[in-house]
Amino acid sequence: MNKQRLEAFSDGVYAIVITLLILNVRIPDVPRDNLGPALVRLLPEVFTYILSFFVVALYWLSHHRMSHLVKQIDGWFVWLNMLWLLFVSVIPFPTALLARYPLQELPIAVYGADLILANITGFFVTLYLRNHPHLTTGGLDEGSIRRILPVYALTNGAYVAAIALGWFFPWGSYAIFAAILVWLAIRYSVILTPFGPPAAQKPGPRVAR
Amino acid sequence: MNKQRLEAFSDGVYAIVITLLILNVRIPDVPRDNLGPALVRLLPEVFTYILSFFVVALYWLSHHRMSHLVKQIDGWFVWLNMLWLLFVSVIPFPTALLARYPLQELPIAVYGADLILANITGFFVTLYLRNHPHLTTGGLDEGSIRRILPVYALTNGAYVAAIALGWFFPWGSYAIFAAILVWLAIRYSVILTPFGPPAAQKPGPRVAR
Amino acid sequence: MNKQRLEAFSDGVYAIVITLLILNVRIPDVPRDNLGPALVRLLPEVFTYILSFFVVALYWLSHHRMSHLVKQIDGWFVWLNMLWLLFVSVIPFPTALLARYPLQELPIAVYGADLILANITGFFVTLYLRNHPHLTTGGLDEGSIRRILPVYALTNGAYVAAIALGWFFPWGSYAIFAAILVWLAIRYSVILTPFGPPAAQKPGPRVAR
Amino acid sequence: MNKQRLEAFSDGVYAIVITLLILNVRIPDVPRDNLGPALVRLLPEVFTYILSFFVVALYWLSHHRMSHLVKQIDGWFVWLNMLWLLFVSVIPFPTALLARYPLQELPIAVYGADLILANITGFFVTLYLRNHPHLTTGGLDEGSIRRILPVYALTNGAYVAAIALGWFFPWGSYAIFAAILVWLAIRYSVILTPFGPPAAQKPGPRVAR
Repeated sequence: MNKQRLEAFSDGVYAIVITLLILNVRIPDVPRDNLGPALVRLLPEVFTYILSFFVVALYWLSHHRMSHLVKQIDGWFVWLNMLWLLFVSVIPFPTALLARYPLQELPIAVYGADLILANITGFFVTLYLRNHPHLTTGGLDEGSIRRILPVYALTNGAYVAAIALGWFFPWGSYAIFAAILVWLAIRYSVILTPFGPPAAQKPGPRVAR
Repeated sequence: MNKQRLEAFSDGVYAIVITLLILNVRIPDVPRDNLGPALVRLLPEVFTYILSFFVVALYWLSHHRMSHLVKQIDGWFVWLNMLWLLFVSVIPFPTALLARYPLQELPIAVYGADLILANITGFFVTLYLRNHPHLTTGGLDEGSIRRILPVYALTNGAYVAAIALGWFFPWGSYAIFAAILVWLAIRYSVILTPFGPPAAQKPGPRVAR
Repeated sequence: MNKQRLEAFSDGVYAIVITLLILNVRIPDVPRDNLGPALVRLLPEVFTYILSFFVVALYWLSHHRMSHLVKQIDGWFVWLNMLWLLFVSVIPFPTALLARYPLQELPIAVYGADLILANITGFFVTLYLRNHPHLTTGGLDEGSIRRILPVYALTNGAYVAAIALGWFFPWGSYAIFAAILVWLAIRYSVILTPFGPPAAQKPGPRVAR
Repeated sequence: MNKQRLEAFSDGVYAIVITLLILNVRIPDVPRDNLGPALVRLLPEVFTYILSFFVVALYWLSHHRMSHLVKQIDGWFVWLNMLWLLFVSVIPFPTALLARYPLQELPIAVYGADLILANITGFFVTLYLRNHPHLTTGGLDEGSIRRILPVYALTNGAYVAAIALGWFFPWGSYAIFAAILVWLAIRYSVILTPFGPPAAQKPGPRVAR
């Protein structure tokens, strides 16, 4: 039961974050005849909105997969999970910052730094489960960690590069954020087998996260 | 379990979107004696609020019915579902735009375009389930697709007409949005039989969406 | 399953409405030395916040009790439920209006009218269940309707009086809103027996709403 | 079922409160070149955001643990729970107040007072369960109350000290808020044994809250 409530709480947080993002796309306040150009000027906000929407969706999916491996939880796990949720809950702030100051180095750095912190926390959650096998269903072994480590390294390395590029070529930062997003989304969909109801689970689900 | 969490996440998004809409009806800031006329001037915001409330309710019901057919999910299904949620989550924006600039062609076009995109995505979700029968409970066959195709065509055709009318006769656009809403709401309630607990389901539920 | 998703969706809406209310209590923007008096001037907003918090809580409890009687749902029931949720979702608006223009007749009238509409819809939901016994668990008979009718009549009559008093003695309107709230809250807690897990239910739960 | 819906409703409220907090960290509106210093000036808002995030997380965990002991609920329990949720739902207000007027005595007092009220209500919830053992699973005895009483006393005493310090040394108030938070978080994680699925529960779970 406890695991379910943590899942329900986390699902609620993800759902709220992803839905609050639209509040950052502000309605222009211009005379009627200027509404067309004003809507065009909204494009940076729309781009960051879509980017962050799928970033949050990806974290939800990631949480979902991690949670699949969990049998029971303890207090430390709750706090690690909370820290993970913190960095996800923060996302509306860098999103709004990037929408307000598009193509600027500082908002890009804040945005990238938050994603890196969220990824590191997510990795610590996985490590914590690896080190406490009695909390898991047994699907998380040393091999799983070895397989996901390069994914985390590549993702965070790319985000560091995106932050650095913000000072020289901000369009490149945007391209990196979008490319990583697409890559991870495809990775989650292609590599992993479909997941069905608990009853249908094979005794050794090869979950690679 | 996974299907349930996607449902819970989606339910959360729908519930938040539908509840956030009221934040767009802004409190007038006028001297006390002018409050009456100021409230009357809010009527366009109230109309678009009610319209969007039931539009989101309809998408929730539509998601609910689709989800009824799903047995298990895979990664691509999650992303299609996310894209569908994106176009629903966006609704507060065109709603606020239409409330701020009532009877203008551009807000009507943005509003209609978002609904069309949501419908197309919803249709792709159905097609995806048709093409991956191992994900469904078996209630979705070629006949279901043939039955719902004209509904989607008529709805989206009407929305295109509503967008076009925005340049000539915006009241007509509003009438089309409202008429389609009422038609679909009645359609969902009249054509379809009551749906009970899973145990009570007959072996061949004739779900026409 | 379907009933559960409608419950989950409704729970989400109630939870969001009740939590959004605090956003209406605005942070004063004054020099530091004037913060004390500015906080005192917030008292009307705090009062309306607390009032609406418990009003929404009462509607949640009311929905909860109604839902207890439901076995399965149909399309019309979904729409009646949505209409009920609409009038509850609206509550942040009259709350903010009353907070911004305290002791004014029009905000009191809008507030009271919304509660009356929500009550009438809630009563129609009950009537609909009475007229469609195959949707219920059997706990709703003619006697239940007769027992709750005077409660609805008294509540709505008091709200009409509160609205009328708004033009002459607004403090009286506030007192009526608060008194009805306390009366209904106590009524729900005293008259009704504790409700346990489904397995523990006696064969004839005398649910009087 | 009823207990589950109260849990679901409460989880929703906690999830929304914790996610809304980020809306209080406002995007600076400055020329591009001044964005760096403007972000530095946001640090008080960021600190109060993180503080309140974990305060709400702690209340969620506290609710979670309490709920573990509950077998069935009655009307008075619902209202006590609602009062508890009220003081948690209010948290975005003192958070925003503290962020807007950092290191000021009145916002510190409002913040501390709200936490004290939430704690007292939470303690009353526990007392209510102690006095109505038929509502509990039996895990709450006189010893549990004796064990948690000093925790509540110490916490609320510290908050009173934090409020008083606000007039002389506001940094001390902040330190107390943070120290209590860390202490309670560790306490929840260290003292208490991991909690697993209901099936795995031993017949006498020594839950000390």
